[in-house]
Amino acid sequence: MFDLLSDEIKRKRNPSCIGLDTSLKCLPPGFRRRFDTDTLEGAAEAVLAYNKELIDALEYIVPAVKVQVAYYEMYGVEGMRAFLHTLMYAKRAGFVVIADAKRNDIASTAEAYAKAFLGEAELENGSIPVFDADILTVNPYLGTDGIAPFLNENPKKGIFVLVKTSNPSSSELQDLKLEDGRAVYEAVGDLVLRWGQGTAAFNGWSRVGAVVGATYPEQGAALRRRMTNTFFLLPGYGAQGAKGKDIAAMFDKTGRGAIVNSSRAILNAWEKTNTDFKTAACEAAIKMRDDIISTLRQG
Amino acid sequence: MFDLLSDEIKRKRNPSCIGLDTSLKCLPPGFRRRFDTDTLEGAAEAVLAYNKELIDALEYIVPAVKVQVAYYEMYGVEGMRAFLHTLMYAKRAGFVVIADAKRNDIASTAEAYAKAFLGEAELENGSIPVFDADILTVNPYLGTDGIAPFLNENPKKGIFVLVKTSNPSSSELQDLKLEDGRAVYEAVGDLVLRWGQGTAAFNGWSRVGAVVGATYPEQGAALRRRMTNTFFLLPGYGAQGAKGKDIAAMFDKTGRGAIVNSSRAILNAWEKTNTDFKTAACEAAIKMRDDIISTLRQG
Repeated sequence: MFDLLSDEIKRKRNPSCIGLDTSLKCLPPGFRRRFDTDTLEGAAEAVLAYNKELIDALEYIVPAVKVQVAYYEMYGVEGMRAFLHTLMYAKRAGFVVIADAKRNDIASTAEAYAKAFLGEAELENGSIPVFDADILTVNPYLGTDGIAPFLNENPKKGIFVLVKTSNPSSSELQDLKLEDGRAVYEAVGDLVLRWGQGTAAFNGWSRVGAVVGATYPEQGAALRRRMTNTFFLLPGYGAQGAKGKDIAAMFDKTGRGAIVNSSRAILNAWEKTNTDFKTAACEAAIKMRDDIISTLRQG
Repeated sequence: MFDLLSDEIKRKRNPSCIGLDTSLKCLPPGFRRRFDTDTLEGAAEAVLAYNKELIDALEYIVPAVKVQVAYYEMYGVEGMRAFLHTLMYAKRAGFVVIADAKRNDIASTAEAYAKAFLGEAELENGSIPVFDADILTVNPYLGTDGIAPFLNENPKKGIFVLVKTSNPSSSELQDLKLEDGRAVYEAVGDLVLRWGQGTAAFNGWSRVGAVVGATYPEQGAALRRRMTNTFFLLPGYGAQGAKGKDIAAMFDKTGRGAIVNSSRAILNAWEKTNTDFKTAACEAAIKMRDDIISTLRQG
């Protein structure tokens, strides 16, 4: 899957993805008014309609979408329906679809999550795909038997494992020093390498990618040096403060191997312009792409 | 919330909860046949109906249910409807309801999860509860700003933070030794104490509980000595191999402060008996209760 993602990035000349962390607050008031946003059903419907418009607008500019499940769970059962239809719509439009769910559990339960997001649910006779994302984010705290089920479910799909997250307090646990000199996040990086062993096609990317916060340039650069065939998802660009120059060293020497996510700066771009929300989102996405690409060329 | 849970445990004289990790495989063939289990809708309907029967059967025996979200996500949007209705039905029957979702994310996104599981979604005018559990399980990997939103959402509710999980590979990351001599899971235990500071009512339990695998008796006993007003959720009893004697030292000296979960041994109890599934579940639940209580008395 990361080989496909890499190809799509090359084809659209854009190593970034749009985070559809869509809540009612992201929608322009005029757009919201078309829906009954005093009910969970209406809110979910509005969010889905907004996503579809953005997907249409960005189809030829951006290679992937990252859909943050939390914002859909927030609108309950109907929110999950909007999540499903967002994924389906984005896939039909040719996007690589990353479900950002950070799921984690013991083996038997991780298997259920794997079926939900990457595989197929077993029914009485046969099985059926459920949310059917291309890539899922996963939390590493439970170790190998919480990871393996995600890899066993469908060999065409991949996972991004949290290594060093973009938030301010990620240091509290992830930066603690181990007695062998590694930080906890470096030990997780080493686990990610182990989990990915033997999963890459010839010259290709491991099926186990890593989430590395764009907000921590030094740690990210050090992780890149240790992890040469691991694809990185880099959140934290834009609203969280990271810029193009912060993430150049998290790509490999040929300027590949990573995708930068921005959510709020694209979803809410209309707030800072006089244009409609689709034009604003396109302009923000192009600005982000150009910022990243110019840095990669210099690097 | 943990004070209420503690009261309910006392009232029903049973420090255990039933894990509703309900998949089609748990249901007796005769029960399954009543539904169209070749569709996600029918599977979800069957799971919900099974849960309701178990809730009715166990209402006067067991104080809490732990509902594992993964098994409902596996059946998609309709699965999440079954999750919602399971929670509502269990609450109406007087159970304390634990949503086992192990959610985790950066602050803004953790807030969305907090609204989904413990709080209320913001709509155009006002807000509305969504899944509305009493307690949620949370993964600590992101540190304080991924935890605080769950505590800020509703002061009446609580969280169980993963400290030492019950699965075989939990040692890979959680048992790594830090340079200060603590294991990673002990450092997480210390964070749990810090997050819970000031959240307990007089003589009461902290609002930040801990998940401690019943399968690791020594680590669990050591954590109990460090964490005197932290409520523990102890998974791993039954199908995962832990017995009553393994968990006695994870309760406090008065035999309080913990709840033991069993899922498969109750859900699938009918497989090992000649009785109907409700009788089998009741017998298994009573056997488990008596095993735990007898150990606490000896301890």
